[in-house]
Amino acid sequence: MEIYDFGQRLIREAGEFVRLRMQQDFSVDSKMNPNDLVTDVDRETETFIYDRIHEMYPDHHIVGEEGHGTDIDDVSGVLWIVDPIDGTLNFVHQMQNFAISIGVFIDGKPKCGLILDVMNDTLYRAEAGRGAYKEDVRLDPIDDTELATSLISLNPNWVIKDKIGPAFGKIVKDARSTRSYGSAALDMAYTATGVVSATLFFRLHPWDYAAGMIIIDEVGGKTTNLLGEEINILYKDSVLSANQALHSELVEYFSDDAAFIEAHRHVHGEKK
Amino acid sequence: MEIYDFGQRLIREAGEFVRLRMQQDFSVDSKMNPNDLVTDVDRETETFIYDRIHEMYPDHHIVGEEGHGTDIDDVSGVLWIVDPIDGTLNFVHQMQNFAISIGVFIDGKPKCGLILDVMNDTLYRAEAGRGAYKEDVRLDPIDDTELATSLISLNPNWVIKDKIGPAFGKIVKDARSTRSYGSAALDMAYTATGVVSATLFFRLHPWDYAAGMIIIDEVGGKTTNLLGEEINILYKDSVLSANQALHSELVEYFSDDAAFIEAHRHVHGEKK
Repeated sequence: MEIYDFGQRLIREAGEFVRLRMQQDFSVDSKMNPNDLVTDVDRETETFIYDRIHEMYPDHHIVGEEGHGTDIDDVSGVLWIVDPIDGTLNFVHQMQNFAISIGVFIDGKPKCGLILDVMNDTLYRAEAGRGAYKEDVRLDPIDDTELATSLISLNPNWVIKDKIGPAFGKIVKDARSTRSYGSAALDMAYTATGVVSATLFFRLHPWDYAAGMIIIDEVGGKTTNLLGEEINILYKDSVLSANQALHSELVEYFSDDAAFIEAHRHVHGEKK
Repeated sequence: MEIYDFGQRLIREAGEFVRLRMQQDFSVDSKMNPNDLVTDVDRETETFIYDRIHEMYPDHHIVGEEGHGTDIDDVSGVLWIVDPIDGTLNFVHQMQNFAISIGVFIDGKPKCGLILDVMNDTLYRAEAGRGAYKEDVRLDPIDDTELATSLISLNPNWVIKDKIGPAFGKIVKDARSTRSYGSAALDMAYTATGVVSATLFFRLHPWDYAAGMIIIDEVGGKTTNLLGEEINILYKDSVLSANQALHSELVEYFSDDAAFIEAHRHVHGEKK
């Protein structure tokens, strides 16, 4: 079966799995920090997705947020990058506004990206070179915008941080307004559909951005790290997705800020 | 006709008016500052609502965001406080995530509050003393929470402001996470339904908060200004809505901060 078709069927089934599973009790644990939560549903959904991919394509590689395949360090072959629940805080507190995110790469090149808004059963999807869709509606290319008249998605959490805060704060000041929705995958889907004109993060993992960057590519947008450098899909990095003009405008807020660059290198290392 | 029933019928009709009107072109102007937008649809919808109330109840008073009845300076009789489009930036940029908000007061006492999520046609409503509903589902009383494990709605715009920013910034730091949705009325509806545990604003007008505070009262929550003082529904003020425990916890961030208090008094005046 074709990977893109299989992926769409799989993510819909996983969404149904999550919606049914939510009707039973589940436990919530915290990971490295008390606000980084994980639930039984995250783990079980990842296993659900992992098992089905593995059964269909035994030779594909799979990286998941909840621990599947974290030993993968090269991108040869077919690589599935899976976030079973993106926006776990929303999942726990709101029972809505979270997503399943699946990005597929072949020999390091984008193949397809799938983001399912689980509670609305709304699928954002793209196949590289063949356009992006929200459900069955093809998405138009996103228009260039200026920061002063744009809505930007970013979390105020970054604004208050030492060293990196000032650059984010200047964007808050210069933007028309900002929004925070709490799911990186949905933020990227919203960027692709024009709900916001850009989305910015100081630190994301591959499973948070893999699907979104493919979808944004397909509507003519651009995704790099905050310094404008290419992202390696095997590693965490900062992320900036936007239309082309706004991307250029936003990169300057970070690449002109020595304290920001130093903090970024400290956390994410030097690009090879 | 009973005011609460009439109000529900009216806000549904106004929602239908907006959805139909959006299918035609409309112009966008800015008000006092370039990011404070108003459209034809705001003005026409307010007139639509004003005319119907006036026809049904010629002796009622009406205050609207777009200029109806701004000369009202006392609360005797029946007062309708109307925001035809709350979240105009979302209306303009997203064509979703905005609301119509109507609060009714009789001799200064809450009568009923109505908030319509226009594009979802979802009505949040409460009659004072008789409970709050989302559509036809009665809302449960909201549970007490602690800031450290709560989602808080606030706009990063306040975090970067001189004098008032540090208090908001500390809340961002101490909260589990924050969200920004861009409609004060919907933020208050979300507080009443537990999507967030609190919502905070440095400056709102009566039409932004009138309906929401009635709905939040009816689920056992509390609304005051950020210093914990009672709000006068004729004036703009800061606004803090939350469950009881979290309200107490949050007020301390502001009432213990001398610079914040001074800035607040400067903008909103001294309470009589």
